[in-house]
Amino acid sequence: MNSLKDWLSRKSFSRIIFLVDDNSSTHCLPIIKNDIQNYYGQIIIPHGENSKNLKTAETIWKQLLEMEADRNALLINLGGGMITDIGGFCAATYKRGISFINIPTTLLAMVDAAIGNKTGINIGHYKNQVGLFAKPDQILIDPIFLKTLPERELVAGFAEVLKYGLISNYEFWKDLKDSNPKDIADWQSIIDTCVIMKKDIVKADPKEKGIRKILNYGHTFGHALESYSLENDAKPLLHGEAVAIGMVAEAWLSYEKTGLSAHELDEISTSIQTIFKIEKVKRPDLDMVYEYMLKDKKNKDNEVRFVLLKKVGEPVYDIKCSYEEMTRAYDYYQSTIVNTK
Amino acid sequence: MNSLKDWLSRKSFSRIIFLVDDNSSTHCLPIIKNDIQNYYGQIIIPHGENSKNLKTAETIWKQLLEMEADRNALLINLGGGMITDIGGFCAATYKRGISFINIPTTLLAMVDAAIGNKTGINIGHYKNQVGLFAKPDQILIDPIFLKTLPERELVAGFAEVLKYGLISNYEFWKDLKDSNPKDIADWQSIIDTCVIMKKDIVKADPKEKGIRKILNYGHTFGHALESYSLENDAKPLLHGEAVAIGMVAEAWLSYEKTGLSAHELDEISTSIQTIFKIEKVKRPDLDMVYEYMLKDKKNKDNEVRFVLLKKVGEPVYDIKCSYEEMTRAYDYYQSTIVNTK
Repeated sequence: MNSLKDWLSRKSFSRIIFLVDDNSSTHCLPIIKNDIQNYYGQIIIPHGENSKNLKTAETIWKQLLEMEADRNALLINLGGGMITDIGGFCAATYKRGISFINIPTTLLAMVDAAIGNKTGINIGHYKNQVGLFAKPDQILIDPIFLKTLPERELVAGFAEVLKYGLISNYEFWKDLKDSNPKDIADWQSIIDTCVIMKKDIVKADPKEKGIRKILNYGHTFGHALESYSLENDAKPLLHGEAVAIGMVAEAWLSYEKTGLSAHELDEISTSIQTIFKIEKVKRPDLDMVYEYMLKDKKNKDNEVRFVLLKKVGEPVYDIKCSYEEMTRAYDYYQSTIVNTK
Repeated sequence: MNSLKDWLSRKSFSRIIFLVDDNSSTHCLPIIKNDIQNYYGQIIIPHGENSKNLKTAETIWKQLLEMEADRNALLINLGGGMITDIGGFCAATYKRGISFINIPTTLLAMVDAAIGNKTGINIGHYKNQVGLFAKPDQILIDPIFLKTLPERELVAGFAEVLKYGLISNYEFWKDLKDSNPKDIADWQSIIDTCVIMKKDIVKADPKEKGIRKILNYGHTFGHALESYSLENDAKPLLHGEAVAIGMVAEAWLSYEKTGLSAHELDEISTSIQTIFKIEKVKRPDLDMVYEYMLKDKKNKDNEVRFVLLKKVGEPVYDIKCSYEEMTRAYDYYQSTIVNTK
């Protein structure tokens, strides 16, 4: 955090304002607030993906106005991916853009949401349909915040960690596929590896015209399941949990269509079953999920496009799959649940 | 419009969708729609500045989703400044940004709103508090649409035309200051001159860190009066009308603080009185307007900053004025009304 203190000491923001949710306000703000001299106040929103909407964005903008934040204000987004996504969106559009920094406090946000310059909110239950690319002035990643996380959040975030192995680094995957996230001591090196991989990919394709799409492995099914669950379940799937399921279904599609070996397919589904225990998850029919898949931003000409694997570490993108193939992929994921019982 | 047809014929958008208001839908869409092959549909919103809000933006985003517009869709903003401002904002944030083009149909939008890459919406009655800089793929300016305008709209737009003379071209001001907008035949050359001036200024300072601020001459008072009027008047001031009043008040401040001659002050107030007949306008107390001025995006450290004139064609910006000075400027504007009776 010293680097942040140094950076702030060289700047002269007219206001420094924290955006937090009720969780990060309680557990994370006390860890950091003494390091930030003279911050003006905080905007607190309810935690959870269901807050990532236009109504909350309006609340944030209005509170910025009430706090008389001008164009020289700084917003510090302190929280998980919901906070960095909506906070980045609100900062980048408040008075046509003020400075913001991201301090991710969940594993998911540290390895994914807080880096890569994507901001956004959901429209209804369609994920990230409104947003823009906007670069934070700083990103501070400190594993100290992982100690504040409930176990479920930590495990869910591990899905994105595994994804980096699957899409670009077989060794990283092999080292982690049998891990229990709760037992990991050295988070710093794991997070650093993920951040470097993501930054390299984003640098090569900032606006997701091509190669950046590989970061969406597991996310075509994942986003749709997450959206469905947000709308229908009393205790909705977390993003990482939905992505974990998506990675199994999309591994099957990879086996069917792009040459992933049966051995690697089995390795992926076994690892994910063991870590995520997805038998606990509700299983909607595919056609209830399919309408959400049609809203995926990667789609083109109204066809659902996937990132698939030729083998672990070798992704391909923009692969069209038929409804029938998706049905079988979804059946496969369901069959892996039965197998673990 | 042939240039637009040519451009479109070289592109392959997945959907072409018009954004219009009830006025431009009736009067302007018929003029142009035959030139746009295979457009998919239109989104119609109510006309007027009161539509430029988050609720309307949500409607636009949802209709884009319903029309299954993907990242390769094109939004054509056909209308006045309200349409180009909100349409640009919605396009630039839909799925993190789709292509859009502006076809301004009012004088105001042709010389100002549709060019310069500003997009935005109002929050409550605070103008343009949410938005971003986003570049349209094309801007088509055709004076044919001026024939569809009510006289009041045409006259109001003329305030922005006069502004260009005041801030950067004495000859242009001198040629136009005694004009009656209703009698002008050659709009093309006037609009071209304004567009070139604006483009030059925007090019020198795209994000309004410095010189671009001169475009806001008349707008510190103007925006505040417009906001006040939107909230309080049954028939609110148009943007251009509010800016016309603002240019008189800010000419007085220029006379007091930055050396504008008494002769030029008189010339400005007489011209604007004659053209805009502002005696018809309601006159709120300054303290009712002042709170809106405090939200101006040009402000810094909670002080109201103005663009003032050293003489016609020579602006200076970031000039702090005291509440007492603003009061006297406002009194001066009111005195010019009395003088014309």
